[in-house]
Amino acid sequence: MELGRVVRNIERAQAQVIAGLAACGVSTVHEAQGRTGLLASGLRPIYAGARIAGSAVTILAPPGDNWMLHVAIELLQQGDIIVLQPTSPCDDGYFGDLLATSALARGCQGLVINAGVRDVRDLTAMGFPVWSKTVCAQGTVKASLGSVNVPVVCAGAAVEPGDVIVADDDGVCVVKRADAGTVLAAAQAREKNEEVKRARLAAGELGLDIYQMRQTLAARGLRYE
Amino acid sequence: MELGRVVRNIERAQAQVIAGLAACGVSTVHEAQGRTGLLASGLRPIYAGARIAGSAVTILAPPGDNWMLHVAIELLQQGDIIVLQPTSPCDDGYFGDLLATSALARGCQGLVINAGVRDVRDLTAMGFPVWSKTVCAQGTVKASLGSVNVPVVCAGAAVEPGDVIVADDDGVCVVKRADAGTVLAAAQAREKNEEVKRARLAAGELGLDIYQMRQTLAARGLRYE
Amino acid sequence: MELGRVVRNIERAQAQVIAGLAACGVSTVHEAQGRTGLLASGLRPIYAGARIAGSAVTILAPPGDNWMLHVAIELLQQGDIIVLQPTSPCDDGYFGDLLATSALARGCQGLVINAGVRDVRDLTAMGFPVWSKTVCAQGTVKASLGSVNVPVVCAGAAVEPGDVIVADDDGVCVVKRADAGTVLAAAQAREKNEEVKRARLAAGELGLDIYQMRQTLAARGLRYE
Amino acid sequence: MELGRVVRNIERAQAQVIAGLAACGVSTVHEAQGRTGLLASGLRPIYAGARIAGSAVTILAPPGDNWMLHVAIELLQQGDIIVLQPTSPCDDGYFGDLLATSALARGCQGLVINAGVRDVRDLTAMGFPVWSKTVCAQGTVKASLGSVNVPVVCAGAAVEPGDVIVADDDGVCVVKRADAGTVLAAAQAREKNEEVKRARLAAGELGLDIYQMRQTLAARGLRYE
Amino acid sequence: MELGRVVRNIERAQAQVIAGLAACGVSTVHEAQGRTGLLASGLRPIYAGARIAGSAVTILAPPGDNWMLHVAIELLQQGDIIVLQPTSPCDDGYFGDLLATSALARGCQGLVINAGVRDVRDLTAMGFPVWSKTVCAQGTVKASLGSVNVPVVCAGAAVEPGDVIVADDDGVCVVKRADAGTVLAAAQAREKNEEVKRARLAAGELGLDIYQMRQTLAARGLRYE
Amino acid sequence: MELGRVVRNIERAQAQVIAGLAACGVSTVHEAQGRTGLLASGLRPIYAGARIAGSAVTILAPPGDNWMLHVAIELLQQGDIIVLQPTSPCDDGYFGDLLATSALARGCQGLVINAGVRDVRDLTAMGFPVWSKTVCAQGTVKASLGSVNVPVVCAGAAVEPGDVIVADDDGVCVVKRADAGTVLAAAQAREKNEEVKRARLAAGELGLDIYQMRQTLAARGLRYE
Repeated sequence: MELGRVVRNIERAQAQVIAGLAACGVSTVHEAQGRTGLLASGLRPIYAGARIAGSAVTILAPPGDNWMLHVAIELLQQGDIIVLQPTSPCDDGYFGDLLATSALARGCQGLVINAGVRDVRDLTAMGFPVWSKTVCAQGTVKASLGSVNVPVVCAGAAVEPGDVIVADDDGVCVVKRADAGTVLAAAQAREKNEEVKRARLAAGELGLDIYQMRQTLAARGLRYE
Repeated sequence: MELGRVVRNIERAQAQVIAGLAACGVSTVHEAQGRTGLLASGLRPIYAGARIAGSAVTILAPPGDNWMLHVAIELLQQGDIIVLQPTSPCDDGYFGDLLATSALARGCQGLVINAGVRDVRDLTAMGFPVWSKTVCAQGTVKASLGSVNVPVVCAGAAVEPGDVIVADDDGVCVVKRADAGTVLAAAQAREKNEEVKRARLAAGELGLDIYQMRQTLAARGLRYE
Repeated sequence: MELGRVVRNIERAQAQVIAGLAACGVSTVHEAQGRTGLLASGLRPIYAGARIAGSAVTILAPPGDNWMLHVAIELLQQGDIIVLQPTSPCDDGYFGDLLATSALARGCQGLVINAGVRDVRDLTAMGFPVWSKTVCAQGTVKASLGSVNVPVVCAGAAVEPGDVIVADDDGVCVVKRADAGTVLAAAQAREKNEEVKRARLAAGELGLDIYQMRQTLAARGLRYE
Repeated sequence: MELGRVVRNIERAQAQVIAGLAACGVSTVHEAQGRTGLLASGLRPIYAGARIAGSAVTILAPPGDNWMLHVAIELLQQGDIIVLQPTSPCDDGYFGDLLATSALARGCQGLVINAGVRDVRDLTAMGFPVWSKTVCAQGTVKASLGSVNVPVVCAGAAVEPGDVIVADDDGVCVVKRADAGTVLAAAQAREKNEEVKRARLAAGELGLDIYQMRQTLAARGLRYE
Repeated sequence: MELGRVVRNIERAQAQVIAGLAACGVSTVHEAQGRTGLLASGLRPIYAGARIAGSAVTILAPPGDNWMLHVAIELLQQGDIIVLQPTSPCDDGYFGDLLATSALARGCQGLVINAGVRDVRDLTAMGFPVWSKTVCAQGTVKASLGSVNVPVVCAGAAVEPGDVIVADDDGVCVVKRADAGTVLAAAQAREKNEEVKRARLAAGELGLDIYQMRQTLAARGLRYE
Repeated sequence: MELGRVVRNIERAQAQVIAGLAACGVSTVHEAQGRTGLLASGLRPIYAGARIAGSAVTILAPPGDNWMLHVAIELLQQGDIIVLQPTSPCDDGYFGDLLATSALARGCQGLVINAGVRDVRDLTAMGFPVWSKTVCAQGTVKASLGSVNVPVVCAGAAVEPGDVIVADDDGVCVVKRADAGTVLAAAQAREKNEEVKRARLAAGELGLDIYQMRQTLAARGLRYE
């Protein structure tokens, strides 16, 4: 039985590793871990420009019921990101400015929710970023239990509590806690490698030449007319 | 037979009540009237930041036919909001900068349309807010009759002409004209109540304690691990 | 067999005609050519405010495979717009900041892609506009051939290489290369005509009177109550 | 406040009128009342071939909560059709074979639900037709109140308790109770009229001639090449 | 200007070639022409089991306006298939049993429509197959011109009048008229080739061995654990 | 790195447990394990009436690439069910009658695929059931590696190789291998319990009385009018 469970203590990745992943951003981190961990592209930020990473405090919530958000907020530590998945598809506005005020006061950096959010004008003014499936004013009840800090599948990706969530304008990616250091190293190596390429491409060199694709393309049968 | 009817005179709610509802915004008004009246969340603003309320001048229009907009514009009074529902689902761009110019000249505050809109760059520059299902350049014809100021179901919500429409970044909500005063009082009471809570939450108090949820949650069987 | 073909040389419309179409914008151009040529409204710009026109360099690409973008970039001329259609529906992020750097270095003005794009923060900072079906960080491979500069159907519209693409906040429209001059003339005539109407409407005149609709509406049976 | 209300006694249309509407079917009835009353086409039957009409017993239910179905079943009379609308969009399986057994025992003819249904194999075997938005096994709770026999907007159409619901392979249509007799007469007239036309069309005569369209088409400018 | 044109005479492929393509079915024909020509998979048959091929009589129709169907029916020859594309996305029921009666009387084999269809119970009883985007009872008007036998893009595929349409439970495919013979030969060769493979696979041989994939997979780096 | 891995040997649940779960069906099993394990309701059977359960042989496949199906088929044991998830959303037809012939020859019972399937007429005739996101003739390539028998998230549910898949007209559910026996016991208890209730409901008793809901409803504030 999955509902009605709250795990108080979860392990988190190291703060500087998390900060490093934030600096790399979603697309780089996703590539660095073998193109895995991406949440469905239907999750979009409520405003442009935010780029964050933090430890996942996960919530499994019934459709139209945001009770577990209050339970989760008590468990937040500085820099955490709430990840909420409804137990069945739902667009309701689980989260608004009061909950954001409370979450911010507990050090929360943002929310990833495979459902709706509201008060987006206030959230934007507060600088509290949210990645959601929809913006929807529909209110929710506090009638049924869900769970906090249990493994969830959120927007198609498996997320364990304490995994690192990276989110920016490209979407949301999850990095397994145990892999965070390795993934950061790979992401930073990738960034360094891309710097060199970016300079060559900016100078007008072609990817066809830099990556030596011409022969392979010809071998595969590409015909120029 | 619903099509081909135009009702010239409709009753409107009091201007100061309408202004009060605008100040409260969609999510608060929706809550204040028992979580009713919300239009489907698929209606999104063409630009962020607008928050308006006004009396609904309703249009029922055939798919791909915007003739009735011209009929409706003549009937607009200062502060009104046009609410257009197609008789079957349609994404076409019924409304653009010329119609907005005309509507603005008659005092119109904005448009809610369960279909498409175009010239969004111009509309944004003019400060004419639109909540629409899509942005779409597809032109429409003037060939078949619809109706103006008849009851419609727009994006899943029943709207009567003269009902109060509230719209902001959270979406669109309708308040029955006769209920507007009561709903405003409830919304303002809710806002006042939330101010106190916001301060407590900002100070780090938990919703679990403020709303005394711990006992209820335990009684329902929530288990901490 | 459509895949594996690259056409090096394509004809383009005249630069000043293309510039004229850009100035008119999508909705006007679409109207000027008889309400044809519009791509599906699901293609949205990654940031607001861009308005461009250019010659289409077309790409037909397998799902999740962006190899042909490198082939296409070599063929770009100043002011061209890349138009990418996957051979089956795909949301993957075919294009990001490195490819944009390369495309920009070759004079490319923007990208129209019936699939996903990533690095949208960087692309926005670079001022490289993209109209896409989705924003998605999902990486792609370089394993299978597609084609470049062949006729494609992109987002429901037939596009030949060298056709003029017009794109702005209202979406994307294609103008056949041979018709570009005629369409520009019609678009400019339309703009001129609209100027007069805009002034009259802004002064409070009604479309009902300007377009002399009252009699036609009455003849069709419109009843005022 | 809409939730928590149950209206025990509702008025129904005459049984023979309802039977007549069932015989006409959805498309004819929809035409006969001026192309109004159609529920969104996303509601599809779980099996082909059912064609029913009955008085609406309406339910407004929270997302993922089917408690009100038990309340509604007590109020069913012979031939009634349950119409369930969730208070926000939901795909959960509110209804299955046990509830169908209970509803059947009370004389219910079928269910129209803008949400999910399950046990469709059993329902098909029982001959209990359902028009739903989805088939979904997801279970629901009994935790929050909804309402029974209140006006609802179901799948975009306003339905009052006691209105006549017509449903077949073409979808679902609602006829206002007070209009049922008039609509039936119009529907039967339409059917009679169509019989004649059907015979002529089957014999190879053209609609162009039967409806005398050639002149109108030419007047509108249709050009044959 | 695309609307208001009717082309009376179109060229058709040879009857026995068309019959051959019908026998091969959509998936085989689509493969035989290099995986091209498939219409979007959202077009589904109203009943299972039909497999047809015929010459396309194309219609471009305004949203919610089925006037051009009457014009097209006059131009049908034995075995033709009507292909209707609306000028903007539309779900309305353009076609029902009366039009099917008329089309059948003129030798029409079926309808492919990127919009809605109604009277599906009758159409099924008549054995008149339809591939449509939706089933929808919503009626249409006869108010605006479209075109007949002009090139269209239908559900993402370019269709010229006289092209061969193949349709079955897998969907709809278009074969260019000039290529029909070549494609048929390739399709029949493919079928013959598949027969041998089918027998070997049915006997338990593996595709890995029949297609000699083991070495290539190993070379690409596939690791067994 | 997830791609390029094949796990040859997986553990499976006991055959009689699996058979028991098949007999219970999806909705009962889903309830019996606390309303967990359901795959998204967008996965629909290609024909009605199949009800199966089997051990999952999982596949992670690139978009538009079905190479791994050949690898997986070698690893099938009697009664297994293939579960295929693309690495990004894809509608292509990965599977058709040849692969079904091969899979059947190896004892496979069916396919669950969060993508497209083709040759559905043949698959239906063969009695090979498939639950898919779409029916689509679009062919796939064999160019890039995926993985076989690795953990996947398929249509929103986490599936490990060897987990039990239950599929019928209500959709698809996954039962963790280790829990299969317990879940079966709970499902059978639930069935037994439902038999009694079904008889009482069929006799006209009300759920309100059987489940003693009247008092709770009144306590919650339900008002009869």
